[in-house]
Amino acid sequence: MTEFELIGRFFSRRAASAAVGNGDDCAVIAPSVGQAFAVTTDTLVEGRHFLPTIDPWKLGRRVVHVNFSDLAAMGAKPRYALLSLTLPRIDESWVTRFADGLWHALDEFDVELVGGNTTRGPLAIAMTAFGDVPPEGALLRSGAKVGDEVWVSGALGDAGWALYCMIGDIKAEATADQIARYECPTARVALGLALRGIATSCIDISDGLLSEAQHLASASNVCIDIQLPAIPTGLATQLAAPELAARAQHCLLATGDAYELLFTAPETAHRDVDALLRSTGLTGACIGSVIEADTSPTVRVFDAQSRQINVATQGWDHFAHD
Amino acid sequence: MTEFELIGRFFSRRAASAAVGNGDDCAVIAPSVGQAFAVTTDTLVEGRHFLPTIDPWKLGRRVVHVNFSDLAAMGAKPRYALLSLTLPRIDESWVTRFADGLWHALDEFDVELVGGNTTRGPLAIAMTAFGDVPPEGALLRSGAKVGDEVWVSGALGDAGWALYCMIGDIKAEATADQIARYECPTARVALGLALRGIATSCIDISDGLLSEAQHLASASNVCIDIQLPAIPTGLATQLAAPELAARAQHCLLATGDAYELLFTAPETAHRDVDALLRSTGLTGACIGSVIEADTSPTVRVFDAQSRQINVATQGWDHFAHD
Repeated sequence: MTEFELIGRFFSRRAASAAVGNGDDCAVIAPSVGQAFAVTTDTLVEGRHFLPTIDPWKLGRRVVHVNFSDLAAMGAKPRYALLSLTLPRIDESWVTRFADGLWHALDEFDVELVGGNTTRGPLAIAMTAFGDVPPEGALLRSGAKVGDEVWVSGALGDAGWALYCMIGDIKAEATADQIARYECPTARVALGLALRGIATSCIDISDGLLSEAQHLASASNVCIDIQLPAIPTGLATQLAAPELAARAQHCLLATGDAYELLFTAPETAHRDVDALLRSTGLTGACIGSVIEADTSPTVRVFDAQSRQINVATQGWDHFAHD
Repeated sequence: MTEFELIGRFFSRRAASAAVGNGDDCAVIAPSVGQAFAVTTDTLVEGRHFLPTIDPWKLGRRVVHVNFSDLAAMGAKPRYALLSLTLPRIDESWVTRFADGLWHALDEFDVELVGGNTTRGPLAIAMTAFGDVPPEGALLRSGAKVGDEVWVSGALGDAGWALYCMIGDIKAEATADQIARYECPTARVALGLALRGIATSCIDISDGLLSEAQHLASASNVCIDIQLPAIPTGLATQLAAPELAARAQHCLLATGDAYELLFTAPETAHRDVDALLRSTGLTGACIGSVIEADTSPTVRVFDAQSRQINVATQGWDHFAHD
């Protein structure tokens, strides 16, 4: 099967709203009337962003959700995607399952795949995603205000825990639910859209709570205080077990792959945000507050006794870890 | 150096026209008033799209031109770009030179780099490029009409010849000019813009003249006849040398990396197109004509004696070659 046959068979559908879709040198697309495009690109590399053992269906789905999570964090509505697929070889059953997972996720958001390319090389998948957003109404990292509350859209730590268990770095069994949180993240698109005009700042947690909170703090020039016991997580048992507590806390605060939204909103919006989370079926919670930056923007974490926890604030950095 | 420091130091500049540029979850951009976006993405993988020995400055420049060549083929004006860089390690001097070449090329077209990411893995560079184009005025592959002339914007074969010489597949020395044609292709952006309203179809020659001509023929449901002696090339000497002629002809017809535009235009526009090529400093020429498709759209090549040449019509396919 040639590159063109591969694209034709697995990755081509007739354009619905695109002026020009697949099959020319470029696609031709435009934001909806009165909107701009939020655009983002992410590359998933085998062995770094996913395990070689991952089910290709889940990988196809994951590529979409990981990219759309960035759109969600801007309050953008996903519209179009481009795919760049680097494959070591053409394995038809692998590509079939990968494409199935990809389309399943794209269809869920009614998004058109308008182009891309395939090439041979070490397995990697790059997607560029386009979403409609009001030009002046995007959710930025820089709008957090002193007095705002800090929210997270769902449970943290489970995905990181599952990954550590799967690679044998934690000697424990991850539950099926935890593994699903790692392998099948869900972009919080509906929530992102609903937060327009409510949230003052927003980011998605791809790299770990502390580092993402630090991004918000730095961009907004504020400090962020987080209450550890308020963070929703499936790791309650592990946090209570002396021999596992340190690792569990690390997963909660510093591992990525959660793809929940971390955002700030005025205290006056507390009930609205809470209602929004419930109406979108999310288990999110208010986990902290925005305070004035003394000298430099920092993130602090407190335990149930209001004692500050000494934490390594580093999240996932693709060049800092091996 | 961390991922964020790397991006901050080498790949971040303040947004000029983008509503949101680097440094948030997404960039927020929009086409100019009355325009749509032509969008394209391409991944360059080490050992497949460039040799490991390539000067990183040239690689940075190349990534831009290869992507903008697709914009040129649509008649689009480059506006924005996203970069996804996969590096085996952070080599500061390498990244410095790569970034220099990248910015040099972006500045040449007055294009903003509005986002992207870096990750660790086998060296690969993915770019997504955005250009302004009138929603109904893009140059498509599908508009070639019977009676049109077929044009190419510049010399073919030299880049392919240089690559074959460099990897030792042809036992000859490539000239510095030929090597430059391979390593430093130039996107024909000004020509693409000028061809709006004149060309009836257009494609860029990334994969070889015959396969690109076949794409035009198939999309337009026509046949294309090409006169071999009319094709501009720096390989005249080689084509005249009995021991080199076959390889030289293969380079002319079937090797990629030329990044010239192949387009069709009505015969009545002949003088205008010729003047356009001269005014943009290009050595392009009329190389054939569009004729009716008998049964299926095909491409034929004729020699100086009007004899049809029997050619393997396959261009570069990333999975058909090794």
